[in-house]
Order: sequence, then structure tokens, then C-alpha cells
Amino acid sequence: MSILVHKYGGTSVADEERIRNVARRVIRAADEGHRMVVVVSAQGDTTDHLIDLARRVNPWPSDRELDMLLAVGEQISISLVAMTIEAMGRAAISLTAAQVGIFTDDAHKKARIIRVNSRRLDDELAAGKIVVVAGFQGVDRNNDLTTLGRGGSDTTAVALAAALGAVRCEIYTDVDGVYTADPRVVKGACKLTQISHEEMLELASLGAQVLHPRSVELAKQYGVKLEVKSSFADVPGTLVKEAGQMEDVLQVSGVTSDKNIARVAILEVPDRPGVAYKVMGDLAAGNVNVDMIIQSVSRDHINDMSFTIGEDDLDRAMAILNKTIAGLGAKGVVFDRNVAKVSIVGIGMKEKAGVASAMFQALADQGINIQMISSSEIKISCLIDRERADEAVRAIHEKFFTGGVQVAREAG
Amino acid sequence: MSILVHKYGGTSVADEERIRNVARRVIRAADEGHRMVVVVSAQGDTTDHLIDLARRVNPWPSDRELDMLLAVGEQISISLVAMTIEAMGRAAISLTAAQVGIFTDDAHKKARIIRVNSRRLDDELAAGKIVVVAGFQGVDRNNDLTTLGRGGSDTTAVALAAALGAVRCEIYTDVDGVYTADPRVVKGACKLTQISHEEMLELASLGAQVLHPRSVELAKQYGVKLEVKSSFADVPGTLVKEAGQMEDVLQVSGVTSDKNIARVAILEVPDRPGVAYKVMGDLAAGNVNVDMIIQSVSRDHINDMSFTIGEDDLDRAMAILNKTIAGLGAKGVVFDRNVAKVSIVGIGMKEKAGVASAMFQALADQGINIQMISSSEIKISCLIDRERADEAVRAIHEKFFTGGVQVAREAG
Repeated sequence: MSILVHKYGGTSVADEERIRNVARRVIRAADEGHRMVVVVSAQGDTTDHLIDLARRVNPWPSDRELDMLLAVGEQISISLVAMTIEAMGRAAISLTAAQVGIFTDDAHKKARIIRVNSRRLDDELAAGKIVVVAGFQGVDRNNDLTTLGRGGSDTTAVALAAALGAVRCEIYTDVDGVYTADPRVVKGACKLTQISHEEMLELASLGAQVLHPRSVELAKQYGVKLEVKSSFADVPGTLVKEAGQMEDVLQVSGVTSDKNIARVAILEVPDRPGVAYKVMGDLAAGNVNVDMIIQSVSRDHINDMSFTIGEDDLDRAMAILNKTIAGLGAKGVVFDRNVAKVSIVGIGMKEKAGVASAMFQALADQGINIQMISSSEIKISCLIDRERADEAVRAIHEKFFTGGVQVAREAG
Repeated sequence: MSILVHKYGGTSVADEERIRNVARRVIRAADEGHRMVVVVSAQGDTTDHLIDLARRVNPWPSDRELDMLLAVGEQISISLVAMTIEAMGRAAISLTAAQVGIFTDDAHKKARIIRVNSRRLDDELAAGKIVVVAGFQGVDRNNDLTTLGRGGSDTTAVALAAALGAVRCEIYTDVDGVYTADPRVVKGACKLTQISHEEMLELASLGAQVLHPRSVELAKQYGVKLEVKSSFADVPGTLVKEAGQMEDVLQVSGVTSDKNIARVAILEVPDRPGVAYKVMGDLAAGNVNVDMIIQSVSRDHINDMSFTIGEDDLDRAMAILNKTIAGLGAKGVVFDRNVAKVSIVGIGMKEKAGVASAMFQALADQGINIQMISSSEIKISCLIDRERADEAVRAIHEKFFTGGVQVAREAG
């Protein structure tokens, strides 16, 4: 019998009626002949509620203790989902990440899955049970609980699918697939029937909140067939697959924006070898990821260095940099939260000229200034004023998705 | 350095102010030179709230899944207590029962601790940390979560104290010790400065809700020095100790009542060997504990058999007995919830005559009818009408605790 993994996010298990909906979907898939593994997140705003509880006793709780607290959210969900399936007359069992053996590194709050033990899962599936597994969490070498960061349940689901050799991993969420842009921002956004791992990875990393980036990475690495579907509507979703297997390829498959970033500038850095290495090394040691980087042209061997980071990391980054620049003899560090990154992604763009210039033109037509640019083979990102991000996404989407190009893909 | 175990119940950690109070007490004990292990229960009414969540999706959730859900309550408490201690500048670490290695049998909802692994505790204590452990829970052989039943955190605390060779196990609660009777029922009830394990065990089993009976059993077995104290007031509590080490011995050290029982009668049981064995065997197999038993005098080789059980077990017991009596040829089974058991306990009573008659006289003076009597070396229990239980306790307390006898003990 084939194994199928379903993953349901927090809104999909927010109350008992929705949990019953999840149970019915899972049982239907079991009735279709699949052995079922169900990964669930914490209900609705449980995680926020738990964080609030923590802050009331300690404004800066240690990451280890916060993970201990947050892991509770998924444990509530799995037991309720298992009980609901039992109430519908089917055998089910809930398992925490520790019980499954989902091993991670010890980077609390953003741990990475290292290894999944499939023995307990195999046993329970062989016993005919629907297995309900806590997403978002893991255990490190010390048997301490870790969490994978927001959206980490997607990664749990893909990791289990890989470990079990599942035929497919279906991610159920409150949207019904991956769109060419956020439909709340762009009225004419279209749903994609398929997208490549590479594009999905870029979109996820660039702020499209449909899938956790790490889950896409794992799916690509282990060849897991991934599908994004709606928990609420019975409509086809978006299939994430190998680029080589796609029926047709779009020049641009999505436009996205990320407002959760900040721009940091180090002023008057002496222009000598090893400076960038020192700055980036200190930030990396402090677990701060740096994205776009610009070093201005040298004036008398003095440079300005700018880069973007996640806004959540800003306080930590500033604390690190204030120490770093003292050692370098730079003049100072400034930051700007009033920025956003708008990006286009598409594996088709590497073969077609003019994509970048069309994007820049769309922004110029709206009078939106570009502060920084970065690009890879399949994406182009521009840093702009945060308050103009939605407007920028609409203008770029308009530029690339007119005349039914996207409709062709939807039909594909 | 000596190890000290503190245990705090649900009301003691009900909100952030109370948690801070707990953290301060624990830090104070650490400052006095102890290595500290803190066992905590779920906050306030968390357990009831979780049970309510479960019932909404499944009126009869499996015990295994209910334990998975309930274990969440203590996990929230331990992380919040550890964070609070950290906020006060001390190193702390929270551990679930699974992380410690508190192994139980697989009798979900009332599991018994089989073994405690002290390695992780030893390591964390040696690292100078205050260790905060989840009470009430354990793991069975399969690594499934179990719970120990209401009050089970007391047992966790004593089991850890035994495993670690702690100098003392202090149980902090919302009363400040063990009283000669429930102070809410008897105005003149006095606090005991000391009580023997045997007496405490009887009192706990007889309905005094200060300590979980199993915790007293374990304390006696492993020679753990146990003290019941108030979380809220800085006053001496009650020390539970070896009878042989007590400075003086009271004739009667406590009066208690248990209203959570029911009386069951099997009518017209054939008087032949093996009948009682069959009835009690079937109930034991169904996990129903039987307390007082009376078999009426034989009339033509036909007996009536009466006994008491916990009221919570009544439905299960009736289901079992209806099958059992069909096989025995008895006439029927009836039950009565309108009963209570009032008891007196005292290791002094075995050496002094007249204790039983004084108790019966106190009841007779109030016109309270005695339905059943049972006794052991250190206790006498009478089954009476439930609505007269408080009145009975007051009358018996008045009979034994007049003229300052108890004050002498308090001062001892």
C-alpha cells in the first residue's frame, strides 16, 4: 500500500468543526487505499498565545525554554485530531516529534532536521493506524525539544514523506495553491497548476508564505512530490515538481514582496582585505542571515557597505555590529526599517532577455525608486520603500501577466 | 551539596505572580545551599480545560490520547517556571517526564511509576542548574506518555527525591499542613506538626486531599522525609515521618470523610465457595478497587453481599457486575450513591481501648445510623448517609480533640 502524507496548518485545525473536516479528508484518503500520515500545526493562534504567556514571566526567555513551551501547541493538535479520527471509528495514534524520532540540530527556534527515524511510523502504519504527527518540532542530540521556525510543519511533512518513501506530500492550507502574486494584493493573480522546486524555493524565500523554504529544499533533494491544496475547498492545487518534468515553462511565474526586512549600512569602512569577511562572519556567528549586499565605490580607500537582513534579526545584528565596527575603525552603523523587497521568479527568465528591464520599467513608470538590486539565474529582487511595495507588486504583475499567458499555464 | 525537592501544585502556579512567588522560594532554598529540583503541576484549571477540549471532539477519547493531551498542562508550567527563574538571574532547565526518564506501567490515566532515571537530573544539577520537572506524567515502555492520576505530582516529587537521595521532599500546597480534620468543615481543627507515614497514608486514602496516597507509600518505602507546607505563608508545615521517630503519639490524629464513594449490593448470592473470589476478581480485572465488604448472614444458603467502591468507578463496576451475576445466578445488583465514609486514624489507637466505642457513641449521640464498619490497626471507618458526613466529622472531632490534646502535638 502506498503511503500518503497530509499536512494541515493552524487555521485548518483552529476549532473542532475544522478538525472534523480534517479527519474526514484523511479518512477519505485512507479509504482510497493509502496508508496515512498526518502532520498538524498548533491550532490557530495558540503559538502567539504561548509566546504571550512566556513574555509575562520573562521578556527574554531562553530559546530552549521557549521551544519547550511552544512544542505544546502541536501536542494539543495531534491528540485532538487523533481523538476525532477515533470518534469516527478509525484507529489513530498521535506521536510527538520525540516519539517519532525527528532529530534536529540544536539551533532552537530555527532548528534543521538532520534525520528521521521511520521505525515507529512503520510499525503504527503496519498496524493499520492513521498516524498523526506533531509538526514544527524536533529533538536534538540531548533529547531537548526544538522548533523549526514559523512554517516548519511543512518541513516536517516533507521530511516524513522522504523517510517513508511516500507517493506524495499534500500541504493543506487556507489558500488553494500557489499564485502568480498574493491575491489579496493583486486582483488578477492566477493560480499555478505547477511550479518547479527552484521557483517555489525562491518564492518561499522571498516572502510568499505558502510553503516553508526548507520544505521545498528537502522536497527537491529527496524527490518528494509536493502539492499545495486548500483545506476548505475541493479544487486542484499547485504541484511542485522537477523543472525537467514540467509541461511548459513561464518566463515569470510569480511576483512577491517581503516587508519583513531591514537595511543596514556601515559607514566609512576602511577599504582593506578581510573587512567584508569580518562583518559577514560576525553576523553569521550570531545567526543573522544577510541577503542583498552592496559595497559602494571606493573614495580614498573608504567604502560604505549596505545589506539587508530579516527585520526580526535587527536588534541582534545591531548589537553585533556595534562591536564589530569598533574593531574595524568604521564610522558607524545605521539602519532603515522602511524598506521592502519586491521580486520576480521564473525558470524561464534565464533564457529570455529583457525580463530585468521590463521589471525596472514597471517600477520607473510608477515613480518607485530602486535602492538595491540583486539577481540570480531565476529571480530578480529590488529593494524599495516599504509603503510602495503593494503598488510595485501590482505594477510588475500587470507588466508580465497580461494577455492570458498565465491562463495557458493554469490549463497546463 | 544536599539535594532538596520542592513540589508546587496547580494553585501555586496558577498565574505569573504566583509563579514568581514559587521562583523566589526555590531560589531562596538554593541560596541556603541546596541543589534544587522543582516538580510542578498544571496551572490552575488547565487540566479541566484540556478535558473539555477533548470532549468536544470525542465524548469517549481513548486513555492514550487523553494522556497525550493532558501531559501538555505540566509542560506549560515547567517552561514558565524555568523562564521565571532565568528572569531572576539563575540558571534553570525544564524537563518533561520523558526527558528525565520517569518510567511507568501503561495503565493510562492512573499509571504507576516503575523506575526513575537520575542521570539527566544529576548532570543538570552538577551543572549548577535549578531543575524543573513536570509532575503527574511518565512514559511507558513504548515511549508513550502516561499520567499518574489526580494528585500524581506528589508521587513524582517523592519518586525523584528517592532516586536522588534528597534530604527532604517539600510539598507546597494551598493549605499549610495536615489538620486533624478539614478546617472548612471543622472550625476547631488543629494543624499537626508531625504524622507517621502510616497515618498519612490512611488519611490520604480516606479522602483527605493533602497528599496523593501513592506518594506517601513511596516515601515510606524509600525513607523519604516528606513535609507538607503552604506556598503562600511562611509557617511551619507538617512533617511526615517514621512512626518510631515521633516524639509523641496521639490516640487519634485525624478525622476525615470521603463522599466520592458508592455502595453496591449483590442480592441473593448463592452461598457456595468461590463466589466472593469471582465477584472481586472480575472487579479487579476491570480496575475497580473495592473497599469495605460485608456479606450478610446466610439464610438458606443465600447471601447478600455489599461493598463500597469509588463513585467514579460506579458505571464501569455496574457493567462488569451485570455480567458477573448472570453467571452466578444472583438476583440482581443495586447501588446507592447517597453514602459517605467517615474515618478516624491514629497509630495510638492500637494500644488504647475504647477508641471505636467513643467514635460510635459520637455518631449515636447525633442520631446518625452506621451502615457498615471497617477497621485496621490504625483506623476505623463507618459508612453513613452522605448528607450527614460533615456533621459526623464535627461530632467525632469534638469527641477526640478537646482539652488541648492536639495542642500538645502541635507544639511537639
